[in-house]
Amino acid sequence: MPGGPKEAYERVRSVFEASAAQVNGEPCVTYLGAGSAGHFVKMVHNGIEYALMQLIAETYDLMKRGMGLSDEELHEFYAGWNKGELESYLLEITCQIFSKKDEKTGRRLIDEVRGVARQLGTGMWTSQSAMELQVPAPTIDAAVAMRNLSVLESEREAAGAALPRTQAPFPGDRAAFLSQLGMALFAAMVITYAQGMAVLKAASEKYAYGLDLSAVARIWRGGCIIRAAMLEDIREAFSSQPGLPNLLLDPELGKKLMAHQEDLRAAVVAAARLSLPVPGLMTALAYLDAYRSAWLPANLVQAQRDFFGAHTYERVDAKGDFHTDWEKE
Amino acid sequence: MPGGPKEAYERVRSVFEASAAQVNGEPCVTYLGAGSAGHFVKMVHNGIEYALMQLIAETYDLMKRGMGLSDEELHEFYAGWNKGELESYLLEITCQIFSKKDEKTGRRLIDEVRGVARQLGTGMWTSQSAMELQVPAPTIDAAVAMRNLSVLESEREAAGAALPRTQAPFPGDRAAFLSQLGMALFAAMVITYAQGMAVLKAASEKYAYGLDLSAVARIWRGGCIIRAAMLEDIREAFSSQPGLPNLLLDPELGKKLMAHQEDLRAAVVAAARLSLPVPGLMTALAYLDAYRSAWLPANLVQAQRDFFGAHTYERVDAKGDFHTDWEKE
Repeated sequence: MPGGPKEAYERVRSVFEASAAQVNGEPCVTYLGAGSAGHFVKMVHNGIEYALMQLIAETYDLMKRGMGLSDEELHEFYAGWNKGELESYLLEITCQIFSKKDEKTGRRLIDEVRGVARQLGTGMWTSQSAMELQVPAPTIDAAVAMRNLSVLESEREAAGAALPRTQAPFPGDRAAFLSQLGMALFAAMVITYAQGMAVLKAASEKYAYGLDLSAVARIWRGGCIIRAAMLEDIREAFSSQPGLPNLLLDPELGKKLMAHQEDLRAAVVAAARLSLPVPGLMTALAYLDAYRSAWLPANLVQAQRDFFGAHTYERVDAKGDFHTDWEKE
Repeated sequence: MPGGPKEAYERVRSVFEASAAQVNGEPCVTYLGAGSAGHFVKMVHNGIEYALMQLIAETYDLMKRGMGLSDEELHEFYAGWNKGELESYLLEITCQIFSKKDEKTGRRLIDEVRGVARQLGTGMWTSQSAMELQVPAPTIDAAVAMRNLSVLESEREAAGAALPRTQAPFPGDRAAFLSQLGMALFAAMVITYAQGMAVLKAASEKYAYGLDLSAVARIWRGGCIIRAAMLEDIREAFSSQPGLPNLLLDPELGKKLMAHQEDLRAAVVAAARLSLPVPGLMTALAYLDAYRSAWLPANLVQAQRDFFGAHTYERVDAKGDFHTDWEKE
């Protein structure tokens, strides 16, 4: 299509590329695809961003309420995590946030900030679109839900008084847990990118965007809020396997996830015991465990649907749709 | 409004009430409110239904893959649970499903049903509407995501081979855990109703439905898929406190939840250790723990938003919106 948006991009490409952030000599800008492709990719970028921010906040909660770490210690931990596999813009600013002093009180500013997280809608649209595309993105969903829950401040205060939480002492080896927690965050972040990329893949097919997911990962490596070292592995996965259905099926990322799944489990178990809400870490773990389950208990859900609504079911041993009168003896 | 829908209902009321299911002498039918009120209430009924079905499926997974129970034993457990506090239509049919024999193979039919759960959209619409209303409903969201994940059968098979799950022996006391699991389901079901009712409350305010939540709970006690003994407690809660912001703030239900929160925690901890996906139980627990947290780590999320987007934040010690240049020394 001469004169179309792709050609228009080609005409200004050199200007865009020269002014964009560069990673490994490659500009973090590209023509993404037909129609609303660019907007959709930016929306999912923000959905992933919501989930990553929620996950980082949960590690903060585990270290602050769960282990009693000070802001100074939190600054040090996030600075350490921001080296190596977890290196990312969000960890970089998290680390800086914990060192920022409040001009008014002289204390750390983070402790003067109310725990009410606002939104402009892009995370919600990502979850709503994922559901429309029938792609599971439970960690993004949980992040959206938690922003909405954070706003209910007076209800939370009333519930905190009526249903008080007992602060249990941290169970187990603190130093070992702290080193696990960083890798739990790593695993949950990989799983979040997997969910987001799966949304993009389905959207590209349904809306004929013609997305190149390796190009998406490539331009996200710099100049945006979800830039992260692990995006290089993600770019590589889609570059070598353009038809990859899900990042979890990439051998390299799969190996890293398996190496750190016990860290993610440990974080979830500790939070459940300490009465700390970690729906991001929990849904990431559940997504991993469900995605790698050839068998799921959804057979019961479908049997219930057939029982009460004659919605039919499929059989493991034959093709077709079947219905049973389950009440008949 | 003479001649309006409410008056039209009044004219046929006696016919409707006579043909409806009756509970405690009360008909399970009523005029719900203005505009699309009836449709919205039925949609949220279905969203709650999705979540309850997912929760029951998760208890099935814990008992089947986690503990190796047979279909005969599962039938017995669900039959036992269907007496007392968990009594409900969905447990009744679950119990019946586990005793149903397959005419073709002579085995239990449930094991011939493929674990692919379909949907007609009402659960998705509930989650999408809840997000639009900015009401957290994470357990309904998780149920929608798990239906979508169940459909990805070939991907799950590939992931099951590439990222194999090791079946660990059940940790701890089996009999004690089984008695806890029923009450974990009870707690998660109460929390699910709390999420759904909160969606209805917000919708009633935004769309001027004029809903009476005690009437909603009253008509759900019979003749519908989510009928459950606990709806009598829910009806009572909204009847005695019409302005109740959330079911978790009802003293009676709050007391029951506190009595069984450790059961819910035990189920989540066991599932995480056994690599069994229980996002419904997990998000229910996270909702409980977040809702009763006067303090949440959302202050970090809002600080990050102010850092990268100048979205401002609120302070704990002063009214107004504030912005800080977080990078400035």
